[in-house]
Amino acid sequence: MGGLIDAAVAVRHTPFVDQIIGAAPGGGFRPVTEAILTELAGLCGAANVIAEDAKALARYGHDQVPEERYAHAPEVVVMPGSTGEVVEVMRLATRERIPVTPRGAGSGLSGGAVPLFGGICLSFERMNRILEIDTKNLVAVVEPGVVTNKLDDALRPYGLFFAGYPMSEEFCFIGGNIAENAGGGRAIKYGVTGRYITGLEVVLPSGEVLSLGGKRLKDVTGYDLVSLMVGSEGTLGVITKIFVRLMPRPSYRATTAALFADARSAMAVVPAIMTGGRIVPTSIEFIDRSSLAEACKQLHETIPYEEAGAMLLLEVDGTHESQVRADAEALRAVCRTHSPLALILAESDAESDRLWKIRKSVPWALKRRTPDQSIEDIVVPIAAIPDLLEEFRRLEGIYGVAIPCFGHAGDGNLHAHVQKNPSWPREEWEAREPGILTELYEMVARLGGTISGEHGIGHKRKPYLPLVMSDRQIELMRQIKRAFDPAGILNPGKIFD
Amino acid sequence: MGGLIDAAVAVRHTPFVDQIIGAAPGGGFRPVTEAILTELAGLCGAANVIAEDAKALARYGHDQVPEERYAHAPEVVVMPGSTGEVVEVMRLATRERIPVTPRGAGSGLSGGAVPLFGGICLSFERMNRILEIDTKNLVAVVEPGVVTNKLDDALRPYGLFFAGYPMSEEFCFIGGNIAENAGGGRAIKYGVTGRYITGLEVVLPSGEVLSLGGKRLKDVTGYDLVSLMVGSEGTLGVITKIFVRLMPRPSYRATTAALFADARSAMAVVPAIMTGGRIVPTSIEFIDRSSLAEACKQLHETIPYEEAGAMLLLEVDGTHESQVRADAEALRAVCRTHSPLALILAESDAESDRLWKIRKSVPWALKRRTPDQSIEDIVVPIAAIPDLLEEFRRLEGIYGVAIPCFGHAGDGNLHAHVQKNPSWPREEWEAREPGILTELYEMVARLGGTISGEHGIGHKRKPYLPLVMSDRQIELMRQIKRAFDPAGILNPGKIFD
Repeated sequence: MGGLIDAAVAVRHTPFVDQIIGAAPGGGFRPVTEAILTELAGLCGAANVIAEDAKALARYGHDQVPEERYAHAPEVVVMPGSTGEVVEVMRLATRERIPVTPRGAGSGLSGGAVPLFGGICLSFERMNRILEIDTKNLVAVVEPGVVTNKLDDALRPYGLFFAGYPMSEEFCFIGGNIAENAGGGRAIKYGVTGRYITGLEVVLPSGEVLSLGGKRLKDVTGYDLVSLMVGSEGTLGVITKIFVRLMPRPSYRATTAALFADARSAMAVVPAIMTGGRIVPTSIEFIDRSSLAEACKQLHETIPYEEAGAMLLLEVDGTHESQVRADAEALRAVCRTHSPLALILAESDAESDRLWKIRKSVPWALKRRTPDQSIEDIVVPIAAIPDLLEEFRRLEGIYGVAIPCFGHAGDGNLHAHVQKNPSWPREEWEAREPGILTELYEMVARLGGTISGEHGIGHKRKPYLPLVMSDRQIELMRQIKRAFDPAGILNPGKIFD
Repeated sequence: MGGLIDAAVAVRHTPFVDQIIGAAPGGGFRPVTEAILTELAGLCGAANVIAEDAKALARYGHDQVPEERYAHAPEVVVMPGSTGEVVEVMRLATRERIPVTPRGAGSGLSGGAVPLFGGICLSFERMNRILEIDTKNLVAVVEPGVVTNKLDDALRPYGLFFAGYPMSEEFCFIGGNIAENAGGGRAIKYGVTGRYITGLEVVLPSGEVLSLGGKRLKDVTGYDLVSLMVGSEGTLGVITKIFVRLMPRPSYRATTAALFADARSAMAVVPAIMTGGRIVPTSIEFIDRSSLAEACKQLHETIPYEEAGAMLLLEVDGTHESQVRADAEALRAVCRTHSPLALILAESDAESDRLWKIRKSVPWALKRRTPDQSIEDIVVPIAAIPDLLEEFRRLEGIYGVAIPCFGHAGDGNLHAHVQKNPSWPREEWEAREPGILTELYEMVARLGGTISGEHGIGHKRKPYLPLVMSDRQIELMRQIKRAFDPAGILNPGKIFD
């Protein structure tokens, strides 16, 4: 073990680490000239083009990735109002060789919507209409700029819901959810965004419009291009219309918080619930010791968190109250066989919300501790989570960084915030972070995991992709990209070079 | 309406119709020589190479598509025993420019596993091992030649199951299910095969091995190549290992048969169950009047089918008996509001099986009526099913063909058997069938549907793909194919040319 630690202590310098330290745009694109601005204003309306206001442009130059070095402002923001306008903008961009970066709400966590090479930011805030709620076919048709919760509100009166949505549902756009194949706190039962997308209208960089799928719920005619578009981070085409499969809205839920002495005991519960309990919970969220303490302190929470090494937040939902109660009881019975320190049952919606507030506060509580942190999105096979947590502790011991973590234990997707060693100046943190992340990712790969479960690669994780993916696989993706975007103008510099 | 019918009566002749009437292999491939046979025997063992026995070769020249004209025998059948052997066979095939067609159990219904250009049939009957049942990660690792029900049997003791399987589960191979993204009678609740595939080992035509995904349950690192492989009909790579996500096995089920005066009344029940009832049933199967009569007659079934215009077979399942009973009662309450002629509740597993036997007998009962039929796999938005059925009746009226249908109403996927006009000699049927199918498919496209929901395109439906897909989309698929298989040796002549 000594040798391993020694090797790890040295600051790592590999070619791809240098890439992110010294990243500089380029790429042979042409600048956005006055003439092009005039043309864009003609296409979409002058009020829907932002070009002069540097402060406004800067707002479109980042997502929720905290580090400033991942930001880059566009030369112009264009807010199209229709598919036809997107077609015209893409034709112009192809003709003029100007990069185009589609953007949702900017709630991403990988820099996917950052216009790395300047050019046009194609912002979908105006294409925010729910075009149809088709209750007979159980499909909604929406534009990409619809806020996830707005669709949810519109579906409630029909007893329906869109089941695949992320934890940023209060502001994220559905188009962005699809671009990143967003997950969230209910994916263990309901799956991620992609499961509910039955069709897409896509504008190619050339301006051609593809109609993929539609209101039909099954389709095996040719390759699954809908699934290929989902999670492609806006690199293959611009999504302009979305067909969303709707599901019956669950009427009841039951939330339980379970505190355990350590993470290993907590995680042993997960497969036991699914096998012994024969239950697929809606959520199995995990919060580690320090994340829990941080969130509870900031919330002045009175649950007995001080002794706990980990908390699980468990939820079941369903149509019948009696069934939901029975599932919740069965789930708690499984927890009891794993010696919990405490089992806290929410007896009302307000109490459920209180428990969820602990979970939802974690990222903000951790962010308040230090702005110098890398928000990670590790995913491993669920049984590897205890080993993953031990590796986090090992890295903490070596580097003096903190790696609190939390997230979706039910599907093995943990958000670890790698936080600066307090004794380091920011420059040292920025210099050493790539080496620490490299070591982290290599360890994750050894555990059978990968570097993103739901946030995407964007350009933040791009240098590290070869740690978890073969050159051949990256080359295949590159060839697919070329088929869709031969000129390479669509969201350049993302996922791979 | 008169003009429409007149236009339809004329036998249709379009360029792509001529393609299938006069289809002849070619493609610039080299023949399998004695020297190559010797080399293949050296790679996989002489006992695992079939070349001389024409009868045996013919068995590998067709799937379950009944028409003989879709069959074509391979020059040699090779049964590899390991990924390493597949790698060697693919290297040889690339070097010698010999086409390779991977084959599962031959249970397909689109000619996907037919070696259209001869060459090597790569049969997976020996790679039939369940490599691991990992109950902690809720993942099974299997070879492609595992029979679906064999995996089910192996999972039962653990209280787990593989939820995404087709109705041919007694003989189909999991590798083939993935190649076609097979659906089945439980897809409305559990989804189709692809939902449960978390990882694949794939051998490219070059012999390179890709490891896509694994035991992790979420993954957004780069494009979703697992989903791209699923349903690609063996045209992009050879699947040699499969990671299957496991789910808690439901302990109880409740089956109901509902007879209605007509199809429209029956189909109105489907969205009502999902919205009003807030239930996602395991199955909503539909059987039309003539399919029901045919199956019931052959089974000497005593349910009151003579008056019925349609039957729905509804099933719910779950972990708790009380919940399943409640769901079944809620579901029947919805049926009652749609004036059923009869509601038949299965009170035991034996009675459930009896009702399912009616459904499962339909394809065989229809096949016994005439061998001259085209088995279709139409999918439309669920609310369009009544219109689809009226269109079937219209085509019957025009051509004197019969178009009984049945299938998965819950997801809009109906199997229609287009059966020869009894007055036509077989030659006339074969000449007129492409025109009738063209008219059928154009109508399906107008209803927002497509030509295959779960059987695939293979080469049976290949000429018709342009009726439901743009040239640009087909060209994009072709470019993806080229990225994976630049020499075009893997399952050539399938999906598109």
